[in-house]
Amino acid sequence: MTDGTAVQTDAPAAPRGRRGRRAVDVPTLVERAREGDARSVARLISLVEDASPALREVAAALAPHTGGAQVIGLTGAPGVGKSTSTTALVRALRQAGKRVGVLAVDPSSPFSGGALLGDRVRMQDHAGDSGVFIRSMASRGHLGGLSWATPQALRVLDAAGCDVVLIETVGVGQSELEIASLADTTLVLVAPGMGDGIQAAKAGILEVADVFVVNKADRDGADQTVRDLRYMQSLGGRHSEAGNWRPPICRTVASRDTDNGVDGVLEKIEEHRRWLESTGEGRRRRSERAAREIEAIALAALRERMGDVRGSAALETLAGQVVDGGTDPYRAADELLSRL
Amino acid sequence: MTDGTAVQTDAPAAPRGRRGRRAVDVPTLVERAREGDARSVARLISLVEDASPALREVAAALAPHTGGAQVIGLTGAPGVGKSTSTTALVRALRQAGKRVGVLAVDPSSPFSGGALLGDRVRMQDHAGDSGVFIRSMASRGHLGGLSWATPQALRVLDAAGCDVVLIETVGVGQSELEIASLADTTLVLVAPGMGDGIQAAKAGILEVADVFVVNKADRDGADQTVRDLRYMQSLGGRHSEAGNWRPPICRTVASRDTDNGVDGVLEKIEEHRRWLESTGEGRRRRSERAAREIEAIALAALRERMGDVRGSAALETLAGQVVDGGTDPYRAADELLSRL
Repeated sequence: MTDGTAVQTDAPAAPRGRRGRRAVDVPTLVERAREGDARSVARLISLVEDASPALREVAAALAPHTGGAQVIGLTGAPGVGKSTSTTALVRALRQAGKRVGVLAVDPSSPFSGGALLGDRVRMQDHAGDSGVFIRSMASRGHLGGLSWATPQALRVLDAAGCDVVLIETVGVGQSELEIASLADTTLVLVAPGMGDGIQAAKAGILEVADVFVVNKADRDGADQTVRDLRYMQSLGGRHSEAGNWRPPICRTVASRDTDNGVDGVLEKIEEHRRWLESTGEGRRRRSERAAREIEAIALAALRERMGDVRGSAALETLAGQVVDGGTDPYRAADELLSRL
Repeated sequence: MTDGTAVQTDAPAAPRGRRGRRAVDVPTLVERAREGDARSVARLISLVEDASPALREVAAALAPHTGGAQVIGLTGAPGVGKSTSTTALVRALRQAGKRVGVLAVDPSSPFSGGALLGDRVRMQDHAGDSGVFIRSMASRGHLGGLSWATPQALRVLDAAGCDVVLIETVGVGQSELEIASLADTTLVLVAPGMGDGIQAAKAGILEVADVFVVNKADRDGADQTVRDLRYMQSLGGRHSEAGNWRPPICRTVASRDTDNGVDGVLEKIEEHRRWLESTGEGRRRRSERAAREIEAIALAALRERMGDVRGSAALETLAGQVVDGGTDPYRAADELLSRL
């Protein structure tokens, strides 16, 4: 993070990734990324996002340098102020001397743009600050699920020396569960006057929240929102059983000009980090995350191998035997699998 | 098909299938089914539908006896008269001395009932006729896709000595493509005054139809519907390229009392059967169907093995290595696969 290159990694990344059929010098890219070169970070994320042929080489080269970053998930319904909160957190973390990565998952469109455009402009507060990497990721499908590339992009930022990586996503559909499975600490943002939203999301947010943040806490109804959350917690109690962490409720007023309460959120995040460490829960979560990822990759690889089988002579022969009654489809499938 | 047991196989089947954890004497069931015992046929279909542990044994026992049935698919938009047409076809086939199986795929509900209830009552015309097996199958999801068990149920009816198996499904979503992949001959039913439906379904029905049936041909607009179909065919021409079969257009008036035109449909089906045989296209279709089925079973088996891996010591070790940076998820996935 020593040079002065631009750090808004969105713009230069996309065209490079698409152009990039030429040979990639992965070791050099990783080395430069670790030195803080934003272009190399962007390039690496593009490589993993495009499922480039170099993907495996990139993953292998990153591995020894990962594990250092604290991963913070930020989720909440549209309108609660997620991006102003992200910006405020980034500002506070930078003031504390931390290197920060931001992955903003845009659920509105696979082609970026859309609802998050305004956010991105605001994010540019940090452009020019070489201690911040900001990257928008396309989401998977209309429910806003995280892209399969998100864990890989996270790993790039981790290896690049980020102390903290913030993953911001709209809390709709399955994305809030996915973010929780990626993050060490998940912040759930709510805002006063969105009581219906809380009710609707109830089950989901109670399960994923490590820290609740009532944003726009200067508005009418903030007290009621805090009471609602406390009441929901009293009904749930899942977290307390899981190991004595009761998600605290913070209040913030995050905007362009004021960051009231953001330091309190950082304190709770730090408290949670210490709790994760002392109880072993942090290690458990990361292992679980890695196991899921390995499984997903393995299943995708199997599916690919099945694709190779389609139209093969072996499958044709077996199909012919099934048609003739010489074997049944189950035995034929066993036979096929034994040849993979 | 010699005894006089009830042949409406829906009712007795379901409870038996659910009860049935007790050991199943598959060879005896298959033998009885081949003798025409409706209860045994029903039981076998329940076993494959419930993915019973005996599924593989059933499939293996059926294999030598399959391949004899001619499979006819019947599809069309709601309201074109699919079930009256099915009933009329069954009646005509019975008069010709054929043994007939019917698989009615109910897209409205996984618990049967719903929209097809009326149809099923009408089907009871044939209850008591030991040369007809009728079975409702649940569909997969709201798009009305065929249940994965449909090919297995088809195989049961085939092995039970049916000369013809009719598969009836509503032509919405993907079911019309799926029925075409199962059937030797696919009938697409349309009715006058449903021009919009034809337009909407255009691409789909042109591709799957081997025979078009304009039902309710006594209504205004029947001529226009035939012209519409001819025009669409003139635009498409896919079938003629594929091997000189131009889907004929029949007219019927199928109702409880009259079966006008149904014999004409049977003639066209027979013509198509001869064409399938003489060109080798029939064999090609069946092989393709078997290949798809083998693939699907193999993929499901792989997924199951992955499930066994979840929580296993091997996966946990690998996940720990990923967390520690000792390996990356891709290498770990390779390692995991090598152990399957």
